[in-house]
Amino acid sequence: MRVAIIGGGQLGRMLVQAGERLGMACVTLDPANDSPAAQVGPAIVGAYDDPSTLAQLVEGADVVTYEFENVPVEAVRALATPVRPPPAALEAAQDRIAEKTLFTDVGLPVPTFAAVDDLASLDVAVEAIGLPAVLKTRRFGYDGKGQAVIRRGELLEDAWRAVGEVPSIVEALVPFDRELSIIAVRADDGEMRCYPLVENHHREGILRVSYAPAPDLTGELQAAAEAHARAVADRLEYVGVFAIELFEAGGALLGNEMAPRVHNSGHWTIEGAETSQFENHLRAVCGLPLGDVSVRGQVAMVNVIGQEPDAAAILAIPGAHLHSYGKQARQRRKLGHVTLFADDPETLRERVVQVSGHLTDA
Amino acid sequence: MRVAIIGGGQLGRMLVQAGERLGMACVTLDPANDSPAAQVGPAIVGAYDDPSTLAQLVEGADVVTYEFENVPVEAVRALATPVRPPPAALEAAQDRIAEKTLFTDVGLPVPTFAAVDDLASLDVAVEAIGLPAVLKTRRFGYDGKGQAVIRRGELLEDAWRAVGEVPSIVEALVPFDRELSIIAVRADDGEMRCYPLVENHHREGILRVSYAPAPDLTGELQAAAEAHARAVADRLEYVGVFAIELFEAGGALLGNEMAPRVHNSGHWTIEGAETSQFENHLRAVCGLPLGDVSVRGQVAMVNVIGQEPDAAAILAIPGAHLHSYGKQARQRRKLGHVTLFADDPETLRERVVQVSGHLTDA
Repeated sequence: MRVAIIGGGQLGRMLVQAGERLGMACVTLDPANDSPAAQVGPAIVGAYDDPSTLAQLVEGADVVTYEFENVPVEAVRALATPVRPPPAALEAAQDRIAEKTLFTDVGLPVPTFAAVDDLASLDVAVEAIGLPAVLKTRRFGYDGKGQAVIRRGELLEDAWRAVGEVPSIVEALVPFDRELSIIAVRADDGEMRCYPLVENHHREGILRVSYAPAPDLTGELQAAAEAHARAVADRLEYVGVFAIELFEAGGALLGNEMAPRVHNSGHWTIEGAETSQFENHLRAVCGLPLGDVSVRGQVAMVNVIGQEPDAAAILAIPGAHLHSYGKQARQRRKLGHVTLFADDPETLRERVVQVSGHLTDA
Repeated sequence: MRVAIIGGGQLGRMLVQAGERLGMACVTLDPANDSPAAQVGPAIVGAYDDPSTLAQLVEGADVVTYEFENVPVEAVRALATPVRPPPAALEAAQDRIAEKTLFTDVGLPVPTFAAVDDLASLDVAVEAIGLPAVLKTRRFGYDGKGQAVIRRGELLEDAWRAVGEVPSIVEALVPFDRELSIIAVRADDGEMRCYPLVENHHREGILRVSYAPAPDLTGELQAAAEAHARAVADRLEYVGVFAIELFEAGGALLGNEMAPRVHNSGHWTIEGAETSQFENHLRAVCGLPLGDVSVRGQVAMVNVIGQEPDAAAILAIPGAHLHSYGKQARQRRKLGHVTLFADDPETLRERVVQVSGHLTDA
């Protein structure tokens, strides 16, 4: 099985590593010539939207997949090789209005939102939705970039300038209890498997820590999240792994955003689940049987941001698994992650604190 | 951390994969230009005993290690870079007489044995030891190669010819109850951790199935095996992972052979233990803290020999993890393995049978 992967970041790298195990020949495409994926397998250096590099990437491939959602939709639609997940999922995920509309259409509630194209429409939207609200660019936002919170007394002009005066969405800032995500995998025959809900902790818009399963997870909440995930995936005729970020507010779930790919809040599955999200994504896009998504105990994942930690200090912590992505250190950059296990939630939290103590906050 | 690995077979490949995760730069040396390890990371093509390729391999490396025991001892002794495990371990493992003598010296009983240099000394040895016995070349035997069983009524000449008329060892063929192995890791400060004993099933001299922990493993047996492992490792001032193959006979343990490297009967540790043998080997040789060796339930490992199986059929089995080494299919060649989990021994055995049914016996 030959798999072409658009994107060679850490997600591409971990897909390649999972593919190697299964005996698949994976090749990645990335503009950088020392991408994380290029360090662990065959890679093509080039632009995502350059037809000649794309042609080179897909030559001989059985399937094309991608590790990030900002892949040019028209470029992948033009390919003769099957693209999984389907380009329709890219379209939905690339535009926050399309995404929220999809969620609403399939019965997943979302915070009140409105499209904003200029300062005047921002004014109208804020009037209707109320404050506090958050203004986000419709496209190409990630890790909190392209976002501005608007609180009472702040000038709309400042927020509008902060997001770059581009087509945007304004959403009610919901007083949620916690942020969750559900990682699921869907096969082309519609079979679906969901990992348990994960509780996510962000700081400065970047995911810092995930707990899996989410503490105090009830069967009802898991069932509700799975029903939403299924509804979204069925609508898109999705194939592969995806994540939906959710807010839990007063026991109810609200849809925040969708990633049509493997997701940072699913990295714990490498050691923490019977089958990792990376292997399950490859199984799905290659038409192989889906793998068991059972969890092995209490797991946490801590992102390594900005600076590499002292490996010896991390590895001395019982149950700690260090993952390094082979990237140059840079402020706010995800360089790796640490997976942690414990027999009880308290010890797990202590170990998260212990690991965090060895990370330079950058 | 830069690690130079002599040998690029599947063991080298799995070491490289474990090293990538930890952010280590691993490079392998192998005479083949499409070795399993070369497919997943930087590799040098050349002979193990060629000083210039060895010099190229170790350039900039913090440590040199190896994935097979037939590394030329003098070549690695001549290196300025630290070699771990120590070359003394290679010497012991390369010569069955030295190996058995070491075992005996540290109190690990072995089947009665004698050195054989010609037909006359074979005759004397068989007279002393009795039949049945097994004649093995002192050096370079693996997967049952270079061995001949001598039963009553057989001509010694035939056995002597079968092993190639080279310096050999003759051993009493012990009526053992089962074959076990202990995989252990030792740090340079003498700290040691042992995985639970594994029960191994060979056919035609090749490992087919391992069960971990060994069924009906008692604390006494584990403690006895660990004491032997420690005694051997301390004597060698060993650093890294090693395996000792043992016979269990009437509740006692006999030493068979030692592998100064990661071992086929430890492949189950990738998913089945908290830290894999590959990661623990790298941790040890790089001076990092050793990892937790706890087992996650009942695990089995089935080798894929001679021919690749239908991946979809294997992956449809609950709890099955497929590993492919990227090798050309060839009779008696190890091409991959399947790790299996189950909640109880009976289900585990059923799954082993199920997997074996999808393997062409070659």
